[in-house]
Amino acid sequence: MSQPHILVTNDDGYYAPGIQKLISIVKELGEVTVVAPEDPMSGTGHAITVREPLRLKNRNSENGIDLWSCKGTPVDCVKLGEQIVMRKKPDLLVSGINHGSNASVNIVYSGTMAAVLESTISGVPSIGFSICDYSHDADFSHVDKYIRRICEEVLKNGLPAYTALNVNIPAVNGEEIKGVKVCRQANARWVEEYDERKDPANKHYYWLTGRFELLDDDEETDEMALRDNFVTVVPVHYDLTAHHAMEHVRKFDLDV
Amino acid sequence: MSQPHILVTNDDGYYAPGIQKLISIVKELGEVTVVAPEDPMSGTGHAITVREPLRLKNRNSENGIDLWSCKGTPVDCVKLGEQIVMRKKPDLLVSGINHGSNASVNIVYSGTMAAVLESTISGVPSIGFSICDYSHDADFSHVDKYIRRICEEVLKNGLPAYTALNVNIPAVNGEEIKGVKVCRQANARWVEEYDERKDPANKHYYWLTGRFELLDDDEETDEMALRDNFVTVVPVHYDLTAHHAMEHVRKFDLDV
Repeated sequence: MSQPHILVTNDDGYYAPGIQKLISIVKELGEVTVVAPEDPMSGTGHAITVREPLRLKNRNSENGIDLWSCKGTPVDCVKLGEQIVMRKKPDLLVSGINHGSNASVNIVYSGTMAAVLESTISGVPSIGFSICDYSHDADFSHVDKYIRRICEEVLKNGLPAYTALNVNIPAVNGEEIKGVKVCRQANARWVEEYDERKDPANKHYYWLTGRFELLDDDEETDEMALRDNFVTVVPVHYDLTAHHAMEHVRKFDLDV
Repeated sequence: MSQPHILVTNDDGYYAPGIQKLISIVKELGEVTVVAPEDPMSGTGHAITVREPLRLKNRNSENGIDLWSCKGTPVDCVKLGEQIVMRKKPDLLVSGINHGSNASVNIVYSGTMAAVLESTISGVPSIGFSICDYSHDADFSHVDKYIRRICEEVLKNGLPAYTALNVNIPAVNGEEIKGVKVCRQANARWVEEYDERKDPANKHYYWLTGRFELLDDDEETDEMALRDNFVTVVPVHYDLTAHHAMEHVRKFDLDV
């Protein structure tokens, strides 16, 4: 392949350490364009902006990367990146590195992974990267070789049509990483415990908090592999059909 | 079962004709609590509100339904509905009736279906209803018997764990409906055509527009069944693992 063109986005904002790290890795693999949100957008899921116009701002970065910010969601960034900034489809889209795990059910809420799925829908091989540490100053010193290799393998071998990769990296010392494991998505949920408060006018308001509950401790899942210090790779798609439930539903009496 | 408790939400806002219709149908089947967004939230995907506190407003409706509005997303409504308003899990969650199709890839962007998946994650049998007409004054006169029967069957027979139903209803005269069909999700995409404009200061801005492109004309898909005037029922889940892509990815050289 000639020099591949790589589109980079995230959901933590264009200035986040995670995306800066990701840019530094993939710029060794091809030509890089970055279109990322102006403001943090984690937890935005697959939101798109339809009621407001969007704007793009060119931000020349020091290292000559073509860097744009957008007042929209990560999905908006992918759409604008392909349609307006690049005026073509990239050879690869990478999103992240997200500050925080997108393993198991977290994928559903994730702006990082929504960008990946959006790019997959448009037919582009796409990978989301996350590190299991929510802090702004997460330690990314051990991630380079895993991210580089996974990108290289996808550029070389492609991905099956309309599938993408959800990659999560344990937040441990590099020597503790046991390797890379291809997994399935674990079943889990966030159990909400709203923090109820009253404002000065004595009216209730609620802050969302919650704790993570694993519902699935199979060794083949991403959650278990992360706990064993593997870098996890889950092939994902946007076909939500629950084929195993078809038979049950076909027995319903729906003849009205 | 004793009188089931049904939680109702949507993404078009608590005052939309679609949710009013849905309430009028399900109130014949059990006790009804409504927690729906204060403002239209379509296209919000699986967004959650984490940076702002949430508020609930009780709105006594004429027919004695317990109706609340929330300044949040449909997913927030489900979380607050269970945790704060009902203080228990409902026996059934219904979302909609969405003004506009949520068949095929539309499910990914849909606030209506995000509410359904959120409720499914929490273990509640859940159904999303949509009519294939985006207009505010869509004709809902033919939907009652289908919605009632599908809800009755789910209340009677349950759904397999962690699965839900995505129901779409053609926007045609009732006599033209051929029946109810259990389908899989069609592959499709929105091809973006941004409308580029300049503001009075001569700066670019972009409005998202697009056209729907069907990539999959298999008879077993929801899109094809809708075109044949069937009410479509797709069992869905939030496990995005692309099991068919595992083998391809396991062949990658990821030993670094």
